[in-house]
Amino acid sequence: MAIYRVLIKTKDKKGLVYKISKIFSDMNLNIISNSEFVSKEYELFFMRSEILGDTLNIEELQSRLQNELPNNSEIKIIDTSKRKKIVILVTKEIHCLGDILMRNVANELDADIVEVIGNYNNLAKIVENFDIPYTTISHENLNREEHSNLISERLEKLDFDYIILAKYMRILPPSFVQKYTTNIINIHHSFLPAFIGANPYKQAFDRGVKIIGATAHFVTNNLDEGPIIEQGVMNINHTYSWKDMQKAGRDVEKMVLSKALKLIIEDRVFIYQNRTAII
Amino acid sequence: MAIYRVLIKTKDKKGLVYKISKIFSDMNLNIISNSEFVSKEYELFFMRSEILGDTLNIEELQSRLQNELPNNSEIKIIDTSKRKKIVILVTKEIHCLGDILMRNVANELDADIVEVIGNYNNLAKIVENFDIPYTTISHENLNREEHSNLISERLEKLDFDYIILAKYMRILPPSFVQKYTTNIINIHHSFLPAFIGANPYKQAFDRGVKIIGATAHFVTNNLDEGPIIEQGVMNINHTYSWKDMQKAGRDVEKMVLSKALKLIIEDRVFIYQNRTAII
Amino acid sequence: MAIYRVLIKTKDKKGLVYKISKIFSDMNLNIISNSEFVSKEYELFFMRSEILGDTLNIEELQSRLQNELPNNSEIKIIDTSKRKKIVILVTKEIHCLGDILMRNVANELDADIVEVIGNYNNLAKIVENFDIPYTTISHENLNREEHSNLISERLEKLDFDYIILAKYMRILPPSFVQKYTTNIINIHHSFLPAFIGANPYKQAFDRGVKIIGATAHFVTNNLDEGPIIEQGVMNINHTYSWKDMQKAGRDVEKMVLSKALKLIIEDRVFIYQNRTAII
Amino acid sequence: MAIYRVLIKTKDKKGLVYKISKIFSDMNLNIISNSEFVSKEYELFFMRSEILGDTLNIEELQSRLQNELPNNSEIKIIDTSKRKKIVILVTKEIHCLGDILMRNVANELDADIVEVIGNYNNLAKIVENFDIPYTTISHENLNREEHSNLISERLEKLDFDYIILAKYMRILPPSFVQKYTTNIINIHHSFLPAFIGANPYKQAFDRGVKIIGATAHFVTNNLDEGPIIEQGVMNINHTYSWKDMQKAGRDVEKMVLSKALKLIIEDRVFIYQNRTAII
Repeated sequence: MAIYRVLIKTKDKKGLVYKISKIFSDMNLNIISNSEFVSKEYELFFMRSEILGDTLNIEELQSRLQNELPNNSEIKIIDTSKRKKIVILVTKEIHCLGDILMRNVANELDADIVEVIGNYNNLAKIVENFDIPYTTISHENLNREEHSNLISERLEKLDFDYIILAKYMRILPPSFVQKYTTNIINIHHSFLPAFIGANPYKQAFDRGVKIIGATAHFVTNNLDEGPIIEQGVMNINHTYSWKDMQKAGRDVEKMVLSKALKLIIEDRVFIYQNRTAII
Repeated sequence: MAIYRVLIKTKDKKGLVYKISKIFSDMNLNIISNSEFVSKEYELFFMRSEILGDTLNIEELQSRLQNELPNNSEIKIIDTSKRKKIVILVTKEIHCLGDILMRNVANELDADIVEVIGNYNNLAKIVENFDIPYTTISHENLNREEHSNLISERLEKLDFDYIILAKYMRILPPSFVQKYTTNIINIHHSFLPAFIGANPYKQAFDRGVKIIGATAHFVTNNLDEGPIIEQGVMNINHTYSWKDMQKAGRDVEKMVLSKALKLIIEDRVFIYQNRTAII
Repeated sequence: MAIYRVLIKTKDKKGLVYKISKIFSDMNLNIISNSEFVSKEYELFFMRSEILGDTLNIEELQSRLQNELPNNSEIKIIDTSKRKKIVILVTKEIHCLGDILMRNVANELDADIVEVIGNYNNLAKIVENFDIPYTTISHENLNREEHSNLISERLEKLDFDYIILAKYMRILPPSFVQKYTTNIINIHHSFLPAFIGANPYKQAFDRGVKIIGATAHFVTNNLDEGPIIEQGVMNINHTYSWKDMQKAGRDVEKMVLSKALKLIIEDRVFIYQNRTAII
Repeated sequence: MAIYRVLIKTKDKKGLVYKISKIFSDMNLNIISNSEFVSKEYELFFMRSEILGDTLNIEELQSRLQNELPNNSEIKIIDTSKRKKIVILVTKEIHCLGDILMRNVANELDADIVEVIGNYNNLAKIVENFDIPYTTISHENLNREEHSNLISERLEKLDFDYIILAKYMRILPPSFVQKYTTNIINIHHSFLPAFIGANPYKQAFDRGVKIIGATAHFVTNNLDEGPIIEQGVMNINHTYSWKDMQKAGRDVEKMVLSKALKLIIEDRVFIYQNRTAII
């Protein structure tokens, strides 16, 4: 018995729940769970339903929904028996990658790691020991565009749903970001919008904050300004140097990225107006 | 324009959302928000809907729902223009009561405080300064039953929905509790079920815990074992004496009780199987 | 038996603890508690000691310490039997003020509230009911400088240690701030440095953050950029409008301000390099 | 330049800081950091100092301290250049072990993992891929005593400081525990003392709590009642089955165990009266 997810984003109107649940009822579908959200500010309606069944006629459901819902509605029907596929980009740090790898081994991650790509090779052996391919694409002697083109070329050979930047410490150029819009997830090491840009822990030390954090967000061409998926924080105090913050912050970074990844894989994240609804 | 809340608790069956939303649609009701929860363990369905309108025929909606839903369904339709009424019981401590009084002044509390009843009179003046009646019912020279009877007598003269035990430090006898079942809310000064009974902070000190907490729960005749509504915690360390914990814990107590009260007043709390769903 | 606090801030050097504890020992003082902090970045040493005794010769201790410690050391000896005095400035909102008033009644606040000054009079009655004077100094038809001059005039008639801005929603001009440097504490309704300036909750909504917060800090002439004393946060989600955030944020604001106030009153807050050490 | 740690636990008396800092000063030692704690309840004094130097005469410092401090004082001087050694015991779950392994790779763990011992072999390959020995000691067809004897035999061949029970799901008999008293650290999957014993997540579900947690503690012969080192919690709600809690709880478990391990390795944990001071 497969589980299907129906994701709907549309202009808010009276009676949407009734119209949608009528279609489910008419098609005799067994709803496991159902959640809705209405954004009053933007007059948008979001719905996520989980349906149990192995005889679902996806095309029929899609077309019935399309007929009943307003034009320009976004309707996605997802067969959860097809596991999602992710590619992970890294630089030198292991904590975020390592947390994902261990969740994978523990069957906590409901996705397949297709490949890890790094601009250094220091993490290659660890990744390969988990029977996951690792490709090194060095940035040495290349400008940003040249390097990202090499990554793009590699990605074109792979079949994947999401690109996870697990402390990938290089800025991706617009040409790259546009190709994978809404599919790149980054972990930033501050509670955005505080401390945008380079070395946020140093910035946090200089400002004398008592709390540091991390933010998982979609990557757009405005650096560190894409839709936020998940944030986490931890208390620090005056005894922390910025290097202490950096070390301590790893735990928040890895937890926040892994939580965001779980939400993404469970199809709970809807994007609108440079923000997310998690339903 | 009044807002009505429809609260449904029933045996889970296929198609409930459709049936209910059809009734809303047939009656041309404007749904503001909708949330559902299914307890798989107990095969129960819960729904809370907010409806906007001033022409709602409550009897008709009630009877239509009853006809469509399984027997023994619990269906409540609440007119939110009628503010809820609470009575607060206290002993000597002011922090929980004070937090509620200040929220009341700030129009944060969507309820009326009918009266405060205390077994001491040290809080009388403060309460009366807020133009709220205070009745002292001393327990001196009375056994538990005699004292609670006096409180019952006073309560019978009042019109109220909930009794809030805001650090009321006496155990209420079964005769009292049965009269107000599901309507008494207590704040217990530990993260239950740890440290049931007297002086939980002393118990917490003796055990050497690193976290203390508070629990808001419905009162049943099993001391400190009623359905939990809300819990909160705070970190402590070895430098805290149990009196330090007691002082620090006040902040958690007042925040947890006020949060629980808000949930109750917004009709979000459903009781089942000695537990609560907050939807 | 009075408790004295010895506060030392000085250039870090080898053997400071020994030198200081020798003086305490030579003067036969009974140390209750002792804490030190060394800022490696700025080569500064901080110490806070609590001494029990009623025969302490403050001048002698001060001069002995001055002789042993480097020039320009800051040495303060505080007699805790003299309660600290605070003046509170407010606008219209009651939650932060109310929390402080209730702590005062509960003897949780180890300070006296000398007076509350507001630019409106809507909070006057509540304050006066607690037998605390309330002075209304309206800003109507006055420019910023004129209005703050009136407040200064009033303050000059009062005897106080700290000015607490408990949601005082007007910017104080440099002339005012310079007069009370290191003695004005403000609560800002964001986790600074995010959302500096006006309407941080609106800014937070626009950015789509998943966490909001509040920051208690000393007021300097750089708006919202003074040394941070305490910060707190709470999780929010996509269902919060900015008004919902504003309401929910009140709880964080009042808790953070009251915590900061407690640290200040206990003489735990040392300022250096636009930051604080809390020891 | 090695760093030495001086750890002192003794009966509280006047002038201890002076006496100790005088010895440091007389021996011309360079103190990096210093922290003290006095337990008023038990009249105990604790101190942890970090000393920089490569010419430290440990025997001399030890004997000078012993001469000045009360009889029965516990004085430890630790050369931090000698890395601590740990043995990890596991059953089938990888999350706690995996977190420690990844910290080890990232040089976050200031200790060597000597060996991992499991009563199953499903984690062997992963551990060995990190070049760490894994020994399987099956419990099949053995009673508790026989099985723990086999583990003891293996441990006797190893050189280690601490035994970490990283979700080792079998109870160790008194004969085993006594051999390694104060050196066995366990992670329990509840916020102790709530839900002692088997399947705490099932117990938590049955009680309907809104918060779950984990506790790292020293193992004594009173099951789940040894001194608590660290605790952590997370919010849950009515939608969590006990299996959901179990999955979600893994994150708290691994973070709490890793934090406790860090405190242990940094020699910050003092045991007294079935509790810990972390200084």
